Amino acid sequence: MSKVKGFSRLSKQQKINWLLAQYFDANNDAKEVLKQYWNEDESLQELHDGFIENTLSNFYFPYAVSPNYLIDGKTYTLPMVIEESSVVAASSKAAKFWAEKGGFTTKILGTTKLGHIHFTFEGNISDLFDFFNKHKAKILEKLYPLQENMQKRGGGILDINLIDKTNLLDNYFQIEMKFDTKDSMGANFINTILEETASVFIDLLPEKLKKDTHIIMSILSNFTPECLVRSEVSCKIDDLKTPDMSGKEYAQKFVQAISIAEIEPYRAVTHNKGIMNGIDAVVLATGNDFRAVEAGVHAYASKNGKYTSLSHAKIEGDRFIYWIEVPLAIGTVGGLTGLHPLVKFSLQLLQNPSAEKLMRIMASAGLAQNFAAVNALITVGIQQGHMKMHLNNMLKLLDANKEEIEKANQFFKDKKVNFSELKNILNRK
Amino acid sequence: MSKVKGFSRLSKQQKINWLLAQYFDANNDAKEVLKQYWNEDESLQELHDGFIENTLSNFYFPYAVSPNYLIDGKTYTLPMVIEESSVVAASSKAAKFWAEKGGFTTKILGTTKLGHIHFTFEGNISDLFDFFNKHKAKILEKLYPLQENMQKRGGGILDINLIDKTNLLDNYFQIEMKFDTKDSMGANFINTILEETASVFIDLLPEKLKKDTHIIMSILSNFTPECLVRSEVSCKIDDLKTPDMSGKEYAQKFVQAISIAEIEPYRAVTHNKGIMNGIDAVVLATGNDFRAVEAGVHAYASKNGKYTSLSHAKIEGDRFIYWIEVPLAIGTVGGLTGLHPLVKFSLQLLQNPSAEKLMRIMASAGLAQNFAAVNALITVGIQQGHMKMHLNNMLKLLDANKEEIEKANQFFKDKKVNFSELKNILNRK
Repeated sequence: MSKVKGFSRLSKQQKINWLLAQYFDANNDAKEVLKQYWNEDESLQELHDGFIENTLSNFYFPYAVSPNYLIDGKTYTLPMVIEESSVVAASSKAAKFWAEKGGFTTKILGTTKLGHIHFTFEGNISDLFDFFNKHKAKILEKLYPLQENMQKRGGGILDINLIDKTNLLDNYFQIEMKFDTKDSMGANFINTILEETASVFIDLLPEKLKKDTHIIMSILSNFTPECLVRSEVSCKIDDLKTPDMSGKEYAQKFVQAISIAEIEPYRAVTHNKGIMNGIDAVVLATGNDFRAVEAGVHAYASKNGKYTSLSHAKIEGDRFIYWIEVPLAIGTVGGLTGLHPLVKFSLQLLQNPSAEKLMRIMASAGLAQNFAAVNALITVGIQQGHMKMHLNNMLKLLDANKEEIEKANQFFKDKKVNFSELKNILNRK
Repeated sequence: MSKVKGFSRLSKQQKINWLLAQYFDANNDAKEVLKQYWNEDESLQELHDGFIENTLSNFYFPYAVSPNYLIDGKTYTLPMVIEESSVVAASSKAAKFWAEKGGFTTKILGTTKLGHIHFTFEGNISDLFDFFNKHKAKILEKLYPLQENMQKRGGGILDINLIDKTNLLDNYFQIEMKFDTKDSMGANFINTILEETASVFIDLLPEKLKKDTHIIMSILSNFTPECLVRSEVSCKIDDLKTPDMSGKEYAQKFVQAISIAEIEPYRAVTHNKGIMNGIDAVVLATGNDFRAVEAGVHAYASKNGKYTSLSHAKIEGDRFIYWIEVPLAIGTVGGLTGLHPLVKFSLQLLQNPSAEKLMRIMASAGLAQNFAAVNALITVGIQQGHMKMHLNNMLKLLDANKEEIEKANQFFKDKKVNFSELKNILNRK
C-alpha cells in the first residue's frame, strides 16, 4: 500500500514481485494468474509488452467474427473484438436479415479532419487579420515539405483560417486547419503540422503583433462532424411481418421507437450505446482508438444542442427506410495496424480496406446492431426469446435453489414468463 | 466472399477453415496467426471463448499498472488495460506529482440510475394520472419480491413516476423508475424490474384505459447524470513553477487551457477524450462496459446544450484548485467481474473496492490523465520531452533514410527541434 520510486525502470518480474508483496501477501496464485496469459513465444510477447508502459500481462478480449454482411454489393465477414455477450450473435442475425433484402448501401459524406492552434492576442484585431490574410500563402508554402508525402497520397492541408473567438473568451483566437489524412487516422500528421504552423506563425509575426500573441496549445480535434459516413437499408414493409404483427404494425412501432430516441436523451444515449457495441467491436479488431471514435460520435449526437439518436427510420409508400449517419475518424495504416498481428489479420479479412471503406463497414455494423436492439425491444417474438434470461434473472433475485430453478424452467418451457405464476409455483408470497 | 448458413453452429476449427478458404486462399500462416494466441490451458481458453459468440482467438490488450495514486489518504496501484502508448506513463507521472501534494480528494455526488417504460396512451390524460397515482403503491408492492435481495444489500427501487411527454411526441408517456443497484452495474436488475413493472402496470389498468395503452419498450438508461463522482486536487500556486514559468504563469495558462475546453466544443471533445484514456483503462481492467461509460460521460458533457469540458480549474488566493465531475455507472460484482481471472486480479489489486470506491478511483485516473495532457500541451518543458517524437514524425514525413535520422538525432540532441534547421542539415529545399 506504499508509494514506490522508479517503478517504470524495474523489470517486469521485479514489478510483479513488488505488486505481490504490496497487495497480495506474496501470494503465488496471483503471480500465476498474470503468467498464465503470457505468450510462450517470447518475441511475440515482447512485441505486445512494448505497446505501452509497465505491461505485466495480456488482457484477453474475445476475437470473433460476424459473417454475411452485404455492403455495397460485396459480402464481408466482420472481425469483432468485444467482451459483451449477444453482440456478435445479434450482429450476425441482423446482417443476414438485411443481406436477404439487398444489404447495406453506404455513402461517404466527408473525410475532413480538424485541428487548431489556440492562442490569445491582446492587440488590434484588424491588424492580426490583415497580417494573417497577407501571410496565409507564405505559411502554407513553409509547411509544404511536411505535407509533401501526404499530398502524394492525395491528402494534406485543405484549409487554414483565423477565427476570432473573443465573444466566448477574452482575447481568444484560433487558427483552424482542415486536413484530409487519407487512409491514416492522422493524429501524428495533424499534430506535427499544427505545432510547426504555430512556430511558423510566430516567426513571421512582426514584433508589435508578436508581443501581444501567446500560443496556448496546438492540437487536433476528435470532434469530426465533417468526417462522416451514412449507411442505409430498406425493404418492403410487408417483409417486416412477424407472427404477432403485420409488416405495417411492425414498421410503425419501429419508427415510433426511433422517434423516441430522437426526442428523448435518456433513451438516445442507450440507443447510441447499442450502436457503439457494433462499431467499437470493429474499431478494436482493426486497431483503431475507441476513445477517439466514442468522443467524436457522442459529440456529434449532441451537436444541435440536444443529445439525439444517430439512426433514423421512415415509411415511404410501401417501403421501410432506415439509416445511420455517424462520424468515424479512423485509419487502416499507421498506429497499431502495422504492428498487432491480429489487427493485420482483421484488415486482411476485410480485404485490406481503405479508411473510407472501413468507415462504410463500421457504420453498417452500427446500424445492424441498432436494428437487433430495437427489434428485440419492440417485438414480442424476440422478447420471448429473451424470456429465458428474464426467468433466470427472476430466479436469481428470488434466491431460488437448484430444484426450484428446474421446476420453473420446466413450467415456463412453452409459455410466457409471468412473475405471479412463478411465485405461485415456488410458493413465495 | 460468399454468404454462409449456420455459421454459428460450426466448431471453432470449422469456422476458421471456412474463413481461410474464403478470405485467405487457405493460407496456413493466417491460421497460425489465430492459433498463436490460443492459451495452452484448454479449460482457460474455453472460459474465454464462452464470453461471446463465434470466438476464434484472443485479442491481446496490454495489461499494465500505474502506481502512486494517493486517493482519499490511501495509496493505490491502478490496473490499466489500453493499447495507446504514453497513457500509463503519463498516468504514473501525474499520480506521483499529485501524491506529493496531498493526492486526490473525492466525493460521491449520487448513485442513482434510471430506467423507463416508454409507451403511448391515446385516452384521457387525467384518467391515466389518476389511475397511476392511486396504484403506485400497489405496483411497488407487487415488485417487492423481485427487489427483496437488492434491498437487503441496501439498494432497490427509489422512485417511480409517470411523465407526460406528449409535448415532444404525440401520445408519448414514460414511467420513469430510479434505482440504487449498490455494487452491481445493475443492467440486468433494472431491465428485469422494468419489464415486470410494464406487465404489472398493464395488468392493473382498467379495460377502458388498457385499450388506449401500448408499451413500446422498457429499458434502462445509460444516461446517468445522478450517478456522479467528483475528484479534486489542489496545491500552492508556487508548487507549479517550471524552469520556464513561474507558478502563477503556469496556473494562469493552465486555467486558460481549461477555459478554452469549457467554451469550445472542438477542444472539449479532445480534452475529454484524454480524460477517457485514463478512465477507460481502469474500466477495461475491471471488466466494466466501456460503451456504457463512454455514452454516459459524453452525454453528460453535453447536458446543458453545448458540449463542454468535464474538468475545471481555478485560482483561489495562492492556491490552484482543479477537479473533475463525471458520471460513472459501473460495478464491482456481477458481469465479467466474477468470471475473467484478470478482472478478479484487478479488483484484488484495488483491495476489492465497492462500486463507489471504484468510481472515486476511476475519476481520479481521469483527472490525472487530463493533467498530464494539459500540462504537456501548455508547458515548453514537457513539449521538449515530446520533441523526440516530433522529430521522428518530421523525419518520417521527409522520408529520411537511416543516416539522415542519425544525423538529425545527433544534431537536435540538446536543442529544440526546428523544421527549417532540420531541412538545412538534411539538404532539403
